[in-house]
Amino acid sequence: MQPRQFNRAEHVYQNEAFTEMIKDAIRFFNGTPVIELPPSERFAGAGIYALYYTGNYKPYAKYGELNRLAYNHPIYVGKAVPKGWRQSGHSSGMGGNSSELHTRLRDHFKSITATKNLDAADFVCRFTIMEGIATDMIAAVEAALIKHNRPLWNTIIDGFGNHDPGAGRAAGQKSKWDVLHSGRKWVERIADNPISPKELLREIEAYLKGVGL
Amino acid sequence: MQPRQFNRAEHVYQNEAFTEMIKDAIRFFNGTPVIELPPSERFAGAGIYALYYTGNYKPYAKYGELNRLAYNHPIYVGKAVPKGWRQSGHSSGMGGNSSELHTRLRDHFKSITATKNLDAADFVCRFTIMEGIATDMIAAVEAALIKHNRPLWNTIIDGFGNHDPGAGRAAGQKSKWDVLHSGRKWVERIADNPISPKELLREIEAYLKGVGL
Repeated sequence: MQPRQFNRAEHVYQNEAFTEMIKDAIRFFNGTPVIELPPSERFAGAGIYALYYTGNYKPYAKYGELNRLAYNHPIYVGKAVPKGWRQSGHSSGMGGNSSELHTRLRDHFKSITATKNLDAADFVCRFTIMEGIATDMIAAVEAALIKHNRPLWNTIIDGFGNHDPGAGRAAGQKSKWDVLHSGRKWVERIADNPISPKELLREIEAYLKGVGL
Repeated sequence: MQPRQFNRAEHVYQNEAFTEMIKDAIRFFNGTPVIELPPSERFAGAGIYALYYTGNYKPYAKYGELNRLAYNHPIYVGKAVPKGWRQSGHSSGMGGNSSELHTRLRDHFKSITATKNLDAADFVCRFTIMEGIATDMIAAVEAALIKHNRPLWNTIIDGFGNHDPGAGRAAGQKSKWDVLHSGRKWVERIADNPISPKELLREIEAYLKGVGL
């Protein structure tokens, strides 16, 4: 068979029904119960999650207000995909016995606990377990949730979800999150970020002015 | 609002219509024209692609046979997502002017050209440009294509799609792909892989026995 001449239009896929599907997943997500961080019970599954802040750390005090009636303003949104999802072509070969979502939430609990100015008890979480074929929607639903909410820790104060880059790897500089919320052990090895906490507080103030109006 | 007690069932999302949506995208993909690698014309867009081999490199000779009547057996499947897709929450802010897919295909062309035992002229490609909301399906469609085809370079002989890890980063050891197809400049800095090409050829032979029966 001979390859053909290139004509871009022949290669463009569009599927507007996908929009509805993502909206359905987000509706479901927004209806799932909000529970403590981390959930006390270990559970199997991958999926998406949001963290909500309810405490008194002054720069974030507005969240307590925003979340008094409903949890509509996550401070962070993330995903936990099954191990090997990328390589293996996802859903197959996963017995549903690994608990990526719970592990991720517990890691976040530890990151927060390690800081000097946040208390993990001031956070609650919401999450959706996505299994079977729905596993393949995880990235898209996470992206849509981030796009819709633009959570503080996904945008202005990024770096919360970073992992220890491991020994021997250069890793740029400390994230904004780590500048503001120092404490994580593995971050100590990483080069300083010249940005000042004061500058970050200004950015947060400007950001929060626009939230929940 | 008080967080609730955990009950796993309340958190599980299922959507079987998603299966149909992925199948639709794969049908479209399989119907897109096969063209030269890289496409001679630079074009805008992100999406998914497959590479097909048609040459005489002996361990891969079976592909020439398999692809004589129809390109049903990719040697590699990959994706190119828009820059900033993860952080920015995808589709927004992308004018569709960047050409991730074309860049990726050209990078693959360069990787193949750098080898001593492959000729880039023996490869053709198929690809689907996914834009707007369909951008969010890229990862899922790629995963499904890999799952369905289990292409040689995505499974047994992995590492083709690796990027230069950059100076100062440890990067494990040479990939199997690089052991069998040495030549890429940036791979020279990476530690040797103890596996022998001979062993890899055995694995390929066993793999190809099961393909296209």
